[in-house]
Amino acid sequence: MGSQGHAASGSSVIPIALLTDFGHQDPYVGIMKGVLLSRAPGATVVDLCHEIPGQRIGVGAFFLKAAIAYFPNETLFVAVVDPGVGSKRSILWGRNKRGQQFLAPDNGLLDDVGIVSARRVKNRSLFLSEISATFHGRDIFAPTAAALACGLDPVKLGPKVKPPRKNKKGASRSVLLIDRFGNAVTDIHPESVRGKSIWVGKKKIGSLQKTYSSVKPGALLALIGSYGLVECSVRDGDFASVFKIKPGDRVHVR
Amino acid sequence: MGSQGHAASGSSVIPIALLTDFGHQDPYVGIMKGVLLSRAPGATVVDLCHEIPGQRIGVGAFFLKAAIAYFPNETLFVAVVDPGVGSKRSILWGRNKRGQQFLAPDNGLLDDVGIVSARRVKNRSLFLSEISATFHGRDIFAPTAAALACGLDPVKLGPKVKPPRKNKKGASRSVLLIDRFGNAVTDIHPESVRGKSIWVGKKKIGSLQKTYSSVKPGALLALIGSYGLVECSVRDGDFASVFKIKPGDRVHVR
Amino acid sequence: MGSQGHAASGSSVIPIALLTDFGHQDPYVGIMKGVLLSRAPGATVVDLCHEIPGQRIGVGAFFLKAAIAYFPNETLFVAVVDPGVGSKRSILWGRNKRGQQFLAPDNGLLDDVGIVSARRVKNRSLFLSEISATFHGRDIFAPTAAALACGLDPVKLGPKVKPPRKNKKGASRSVLLIDRFGNAVTDIHPESVRGKSIWVGKKKIGSLQKTYSSVKPGALLALIGSYGLVECSVRDGDFASVFKIKPGDRVHVR
Repeated sequence: MGSQGHAASGSSVIPIALLTDFGHQDPYVGIMKGVLLSRAPGATVVDLCHEIPGQRIGVGAFFLKAAIAYFPNETLFVAVVDPGVGSKRSILWGRNKRGQQFLAPDNGLLDDVGIVSARRVKNRSLFLSEISATFHGRDIFAPTAAALACGLDPVKLGPKVKPPRKNKKGASRSVLLIDRFGNAVTDIHPESVRGKSIWVGKKKIGSLQKTYSSVKPGALLALIGSYGLVECSVRDGDFASVFKIKPGDRVHVR
Repeated sequence: MGSQGHAASGSSVIPIALLTDFGHQDPYVGIMKGVLLSRAPGATVVDLCHEIPGQRIGVGAFFLKAAIAYFPNETLFVAVVDPGVGSKRSILWGRNKRGQQFLAPDNGLLDDVGIVSARRVKNRSLFLSEISATFHGRDIFAPTAAALACGLDPVKLGPKVKPPRKNKKGASRSVLLIDRFGNAVTDIHPESVRGKSIWVGKKKIGSLQKTYSSVKPGALLALIGSYGLVECSVRDGDFASVFKIKPGDRVHVR
Repeated sequence: MGSQGHAASGSSVIPIALLTDFGHQDPYVGIMKGVLLSRAPGATVVDLCHEIPGQRIGVGAFFLKAAIAYFPNETLFVAVVDPGVGSKRSILWGRNKRGQQFLAPDNGLLDDVGIVSARRVKNRSLFLSEISATFHGRDIFAPTAAALACGLDPVKLGPKVKPPRKNKKGASRSVLLIDRFGNAVTDIHPESVRGKSIWVGKKKIGSLQKTYSSVKPGALLALIGSYGLVECSVRDGDFASVFKIKPGDRVHVR
């Protein structure tokens, strides 16, 4: 989605990046974009990811953390993974040091993006007039994002609150997620495994390799993946399918 | 997709929302966007949904009806769920009271969007020069949409026809569709179930709840869903998978 | 993604079409768009397709060839199907007669787009400062594309090289791919089958039909499909599922 040439308001509209667990089979994301298009017609909307596994907040937080470095300072991220929708859970606005803004349910999604200033979103005059019990992405997040994209002062969102605490728990030494290629992304930082061997469950992978092409096609390897973390793969193959690896499986370093 | 900064024509280009059953595995939607970009370079193109189950016109009509309220008056919706492609089925243009425009095969897709003025699209000079038997989304719909987006007077599309009749059949009291989360969206309006119990097949769900959080995690519930209709769910779970519910299953209210 | 109204550079930014095997479950495509948005804020980005089966370069090359005719002359195509990522494989820039530009790994992706001028992309000053071993889409392709979109002279990319040779091997007379509808797209040109019968494996399909509606619902047929090639289908059905057809299956014309 992009500028309408005739959008007079376009001159100060900021980019909006969307992260949800809404998938693509339903029109949920499309309807959110309809609201954005109606209320911030000049906004540039980018799909960051909509296939977060249903309601898995941790994966959403991880993707958000991994992505923000690559987006402009003026970006507004709207993250909706929201198992508590319709309950009394709050909605948070936050800003990090770079000036990037965030809107998300107050459920941990924003724990790892370096929020330094936060507010509770409570100003109903910004929302759609009817608010459902199931789809705040459409009824609250999209219209609030549109208002911010058009220059709304965040002071008007609601009262200041403490920024979400940075998630301080260390690596659990397990498989975080399986990507499209069957790579097992772990939560292990590469510094801690130099010169050691990596095991996933009882499967020995070996020591860190530089690239896929360091081993023969079909061979197992561990390397530093796209998230800067240890990943386990089969060169030109699908590691997770072949070895039945799933998120949560333990990873050992010896 | 958005404005090219240099698009002189951009000053009057209207937003285009796409709804198809083309999915994402093929380049069909991307190619339609190529045609739009070539012929209406300043247009704002929004993906409403491309995962309509193959050729299920009813789902397309339902999604369209659910979405239009959230889009601007000037939106042009292009809906291509087209089992009759290549046959003599007509192509319809329509406009509703709000001024939203629509292009779709004349097969029922536009029955529920409130068309008040309609035309048969017959002006071949608007289409691509070669027209395939299988992909009118690319060869007819996209170039016609681009022309409308650039300000073509609909009079030039073809002769006036009667607007599609509003679908008047009442609720069939069944499951319309299963969404990504496994919620069973029914075609039952909430007014008709107040104080009564809802059953899906032989499974008793109970009376309408306010929100997911009205019941315990893992519990069954019925509530008013994102479409304003009765939905059946498992809190924090996947109702349709657990109970093997599928579109068409009967819903009872007692 | 589209113009930011305030992008002064927007006045000369060209459209970028993305083709990858990154899928939608991960934020890989979204992160590439973050880089593009950061470095070419006025660019119009179009998703051509992101569901190329993992690392199947031939399908990527085929989709690219099928799509380019429908995009503007000024389009920059960025194609990332890259099993050799992190190895010493080169990265190619190319331009075809129409002026369309391309960026891709030097692995065959650009064999069928009519490149007449090519360069090896070697200018590290264009890339992100840190380059991973696994995600050159983000670290090399996106920033290089952004630079080109903003008007970089391709001379600055790296040394001239021979354009990739046009793939001259004839049709292998087999199923190229199965599309979303279960149609089997073959690599057979329709001229060679006029008046003859088509078989997929041991299944007789018959002679070419004009449209789906030339046969009864549920009947088998062959016709000229959306790629201009022979396709085998079941009217209103899923040919590939019903007959267990897969890419690579032999097609006979007798």
